[in-house]
Amino acid sequence: MLITLSPNTPPTTRAAVLAAALERGFQVQSMDNGRGGSVIGVAGSLGHDLLELPGVESVQTVHKPYMLASREARSTSVVMVGDVAIGAGTPVVMAGPCSIESEAAQIAIALDVKRAGATILRGGAFKPRSSPYSFQGMGEDGLRALATARQASGLPVVTEVMEPEQVDLVAEYTDMLQIGSRNMANFPLLKRVGRSNVPVLLKRGFAATQEEFLMSAEYIMAGGNPDVVLCERGIRAFDSAFRFTLDLNVVPSLRELTHLPVMVDPSHGTGRRSLVGRMAMAGIAAGADGLMLEVHPDPDNALSDGYQTITPDELAHICRRGAAVHDALRGFDEQDELASIATFDTLDEGAEVALSA
Amino acid sequence: MLITLSPNTPPTTRAAVLAAALERGFQVQSMDNGRGGSVIGVAGSLGHDLLELPGVESVQTVHKPYMLASREARSTSVVMVGDVAIGAGTPVVMAGPCSIESEAAQIAIALDVKRAGATILRGGAFKPRSSPYSFQGMGEDGLRALATARQASGLPVVTEVMEPEQVDLVAEYTDMLQIGSRNMANFPLLKRVGRSNVPVLLKRGFAATQEEFLMSAEYIMAGGNPDVVLCERGIRAFDSAFRFTLDLNVVPSLRELTHLPVMVDPSHGTGRRSLVGRMAMAGIAAGADGLMLEVHPDPDNALSDGYQTITPDELAHICRRGAAVHDALRGFDEQDELASIATFDTLDEGAEVALSA
Amino acid sequence: MLITLSPNTPPTTRAAVLAAALERGFQVQSMDNGRGGSVIGVAGSLGHDLLELPGVESVQTVHKPYMLASREARSTSVVMVGDVAIGAGTPVVMAGPCSIESEAAQIAIALDVKRAGATILRGGAFKPRSSPYSFQGMGEDGLRALATARQASGLPVVTEVMEPEQVDLVAEYTDMLQIGSRNMANFPLLKRVGRSNVPVLLKRGFAATQEEFLMSAEYIMAGGNPDVVLCERGIRAFDSAFRFTLDLNVVPSLRELTHLPVMVDPSHGTGRRSLVGRMAMAGIAAGADGLMLEVHPDPDNALSDGYQTITPDELAHICRRGAAVHDALRGFDEQDELASIATFDTLDEGAEVALSA
Amino acid sequence: MLITLSPNTPPTTRAAVLAAALERGFQVQSMDNGRGGSVIGVAGSLGHDLLELPGVESVQTVHKPYMLASREARSTSVVMVGDVAIGAGTPVVMAGPCSIESEAAQIAIALDVKRAGATILRGGAFKPRSSPYSFQGMGEDGLRALATARQASGLPVVTEVMEPEQVDLVAEYTDMLQIGSRNMANFPLLKRVGRSNVPVLLKRGFAATQEEFLMSAEYIMAGGNPDVVLCERGIRAFDSAFRFTLDLNVVPSLRELTHLPVMVDPSHGTGRRSLVGRMAMAGIAAGADGLMLEVHPDPDNALSDGYQTITPDELAHICRRGAAVHDALRGFDEQDELASIATFDTLDEGAEVALSA
Repeated sequence: MLITLSPNTPPTTRAAVLAAALERGFQVQSMDNGRGGSVIGVAGSLGHDLLELPGVESVQTVHKPYMLASREARSTSVVMVGDVAIGAGTPVVMAGPCSIESEAAQIAIALDVKRAGATILRGGAFKPRSSPYSFQGMGEDGLRALATARQASGLPVVTEVMEPEQVDLVAEYTDMLQIGSRNMANFPLLKRVGRSNVPVLLKRGFAATQEEFLMSAEYIMAGGNPDVVLCERGIRAFDSAFRFTLDLNVVPSLRELTHLPVMVDPSHGTGRRSLVGRMAMAGIAAGADGLMLEVHPDPDNALSDGYQTITPDELAHICRRGAAVHDALRGFDEQDELASIATFDTLDEGAEVALSA
Repeated sequence: MLITLSPNTPPTTRAAVLAAALERGFQVQSMDNGRGGSVIGVAGSLGHDLLELPGVESVQTVHKPYMLASREARSTSVVMVGDVAIGAGTPVVMAGPCSIESEAAQIAIALDVKRAGATILRGGAFKPRSSPYSFQGMGEDGLRALATARQASGLPVVTEVMEPEQVDLVAEYTDMLQIGSRNMANFPLLKRVGRSNVPVLLKRGFAATQEEFLMSAEYIMAGGNPDVVLCERGIRAFDSAFRFTLDLNVVPSLRELTHLPVMVDPSHGTGRRSLVGRMAMAGIAAGADGLMLEVHPDPDNALSDGYQTITPDELAHICRRGAAVHDALRGFDEQDELASIATFDTLDEGAEVALSA
Repeated sequence: MLITLSPNTPPTTRAAVLAAALERGFQVQSMDNGRGGSVIGVAGSLGHDLLELPGVESVQTVHKPYMLASREARSTSVVMVGDVAIGAGTPVVMAGPCSIESEAAQIAIALDVKRAGATILRGGAFKPRSSPYSFQGMGEDGLRALATARQASGLPVVTEVMEPEQVDLVAEYTDMLQIGSRNMANFPLLKRVGRSNVPVLLKRGFAATQEEFLMSAEYIMAGGNPDVVLCERGIRAFDSAFRFTLDLNVVPSLRELTHLPVMVDPSHGTGRRSLVGRMAMAGIAAGADGLMLEVHPDPDNALSDGYQTITPDELAHICRRGAAVHDALRGFDEQDELASIATFDTLDEGAEVALSA
Repeated sequence: MLITLSPNTPPTTRAAVLAAALERGFQVQSMDNGRGGSVIGVAGSLGHDLLELPGVESVQTVHKPYMLASREARSTSVVMVGDVAIGAGTPVVMAGPCSIESEAAQIAIALDVKRAGATILRGGAFKPRSSPYSFQGMGEDGLRALATARQASGLPVVTEVMEPEQVDLVAEYTDMLQIGSRNMANFPLLKRVGRSNVPVLLKRGFAATQEEFLMSAEYIMAGGNPDVVLCERGIRAFDSAFRFTLDLNVVPSLRELTHLPVMVDPSHGTGRRSLVGRMAMAGIAAGADGLMLEVHPDPDNALSDGYQTITPDELAHICRRGAAVHDALRGFDEQDELASIATFDTLDEGAEVALSA
């Protein structure tokens, strides 16, 4: 159940709810409700009438299984990564190489992507590779290179963590922990990052349903970490001409279901360099809170994922045009916007609105 | 093989090629190459050296299996539907109800969608329904209602044809023949519309690969009808929360492979009314030549597909914002655009630029 | 609604039901219920209390949307193809080449597959090919060759029909009409074979759900043709190492939902010759009523589908071993069988048995 | 590259190969080749002519990327779990509850499944659940209950391990470590069980290709653990009527590619209790080395997965009939078998082999 508390709820109310939950052995977790108050999620039903407690605004007993992640708990969230706000209205671009290749290279690419318009730097130190014989990443040396590039560029950084034991180590060096597509249902790892206080970029499993995706976010939030950003990165479909199929339907759909920000990764979501630019535009148009892109100065010689990696110039193009698309769609989802159209059309029937105009 | 003829090729050259093909029993079809000359596709290899014939610009013996539809045959195509040009740079909006419900209703919706910004009217008279007991469309009465609505609104019309025997009948009433997703691989139907001179809207089978899609276009073109418009309308994927998954990756990918215009249908591609607007924007941003949308004055009471149907007001919103997105992306794919970025960055950001060189 | 009539129902009852349905404009169709009586399906609800009519055994108002095909209408069906019974307890093998190649070749393969154990001969005269430039079948000459091979071998024959206009022609030459996977949702074709009196082999669309499959059978039955045999032939999945994925789950599942016989096609369902034998065995073990197999004396030189075609020797191996598997599983699904196990265990293993009780 | 050494190869040869590999920084791993000798896999190419070394039988430089798992390295493998041999010709049945529920319950079910014919006991102590609020398994208490049930029944046991840190703990209690479908690409976990000396049951990811499946096995083998058993457990497809689709095509296909045993899990592969029996038979007929089944005395009240769980009686039925199917197919894949058919048919053309016999 979800219990919403108003801003000035007395501590005794919160204590009473927590005590009641613990007594029954239910999991319980509270978080800011985005309106000055807070919301408490209890994995079970508390028997007494909580609405009588002072400060209790509402009690929901029927809700989505991902109760903390749902829009029933709060309407929107902004996740801060360093000083960059994800979900605050301006699309955020995370960019960098698939794998960190050296300290010098990481510093150079950091400056490149910053100049191109990215505000968060990516780079993999621990890499999930389908072959045990492929380059597995630079490991802790890579993390150090990433931290140096952060300092040199001033950009906050995101990097992948692959196992529970590594979470503390990786968290020392990064501003955001990435959970890769293949680990979306690695529940021990989700629980472990849920106990960290570093924001998490959760990539959708390439065969995960929307609900499974949100349940994985819930695992992290149930552990006490509310700072989760979702990332659509392509699903597996039937046409072997594409490595993955970017599923943009989930962007507006997740918007209806969750308060968490939603990003789009057109690099993995297409698996083909020449499609990345257009699909980045489509992601922004679908309403994404940002983009994650693989960028390398010389994609053909990147240590991994070169076929889907773009250059800093292409990134600049994407950043500039993405901002223009975002501007063109400001206010698109607002009710007033739709209402004003109705009025406009009713009043002005003669004026033919043409897309071609 | 593909033989390209220059504008002033003597008739003897064309005659020689056709004769050589017919003699060997090869299928042969020629079409305008978009640059004043023409291109002849021969389903086989002609034994003599055609390059020696006067006017022969080029001979390609290795090419895509969809030779007429490929960009190897010509670079772009514009398909005229009435006086509306598809593929000419301005996105076209086709809109109207799933099923034609009555003459009066079709006239009313025609005026509504025109006012909202659509330039082609849709409406189904023969409906493929998964149940034999569901409403199967108004049939020829529906075609007559569509023709009346065309006259009343001045909009050209598109409607579905489901079987070879109906092609002549439907072609009498419509400006464009639609081949539905379930008929994308109905080869006798494709062959039959290939022998008609009415433009064809070919919807992608919901489990068809990109290559199968283009081979179906090739069936139509091999019959002598070059006016084919492709339409992505969602593929079948694994998440039952969505009827279909709009696959926008194919929009930029088809652009690389074919000269045919590519449209997007976010109504079927999402199966959910609330997702249509954003996915229409994403379709335009992905580079589509237009949108096909199901529109009804009262979607909840539409005879079919109400759950994915929007109102005329929502259509107006989509047309207006779609035009803005299109404007924001004018010239996006052009090489000069990318080159200018590089220059811009070099001039603007100075010595610190370290490009891939 | 479904109205079941007992064997000796007076004609007045049937007439009253039909009249009531027609009066309300509902589609109506009756068929044998498999127990001496009949069942009438009405696509709507009749307002008066039909149970009061003499001979009415039962009235079902809530049932599956595929009412005639469902097990609610009757429990099992046997479909006769010539003198071969499908669904009568013994698996039936249909075999032959993908395409009919010549009269002599078709006669030779007919004798080969008969000797190997097949009891129905297949062969395509009209072929759906993904390229307009590929061999499209011998057409009517192929049908004549098939009829000659039938006479020479004594085997009844099955061949594909691709368009409504061809149904009468094809029906002249064949004992069973095949609807191919790509035409499973070609509703005009389904309606047309529904008006024929020739049994139909309906192959599952490679991206059709089980319910869509049954609704397509319903289209045929609603037209008046009760003799439908379903055939699972592989679905499209994500691994490009396989052309299709044979979905045997549907075999026992369809058994629960429909009285129609269910066959399995491991040639298309694997797309790879070396997998056909084992998957044929798996199909029989899953409970299929028979197998459809592509067989050619020289698969590497077959005009189509050679990669998934086996030799007559391999067919003989499959027939022999398939019979053994079928024998090993006789009675597998019967309740008594399960009950006897419980008894057997109780008697044999004594007091230590702790059943669920 | 793969270097095969004959039984009596001098130690100097092996030492030379290992030294050459290490010197170049290549990963290297050797294992028994199944014919008395051994095979060394080197993840790179060694520059000198190894064939000149004494005892080197063959050197393969071109081979599958899963070199140790491939049939190029050895032809078949038998994996011992306790005293039970998997891959030795007789199908092995692993059975038990999804979750261990108590020590008493686990002992009771152990005796039940043993009596029914199972030879390995399963039961989950650490459970991957899609909700953080669902029962997550009994943990170490569950492991202890499993060990007690092993002692009481004499059956070796298999249980899932979910994270690298738990491998040592779980290995203390179990005879076989299970890697679940969601962890098939959890590479740190694969590496960790690769360093253990306990056999591993590797379940296929529900959206993993056959090659990805084998690469995950390779991760384990490259760590030094050769005892890997593969298990097909259903893939994710498009029909929401089925939780998963059992993909039996991979059984004969994996047989062509790998020496590792292949099992089938019809409980997860159907997600529906009523389909388990038939699909178990199909799995055996497809050539699987065994079955994994969820069994509970009272499936409707199981703590997890009850909808796909069968009773001990149903298990007995499956074991008995599965053995009969296996017997019916003994020698099915052998070349001699096929050859003898050819002879038989040639000699005895008059004898019609009929499946119906």
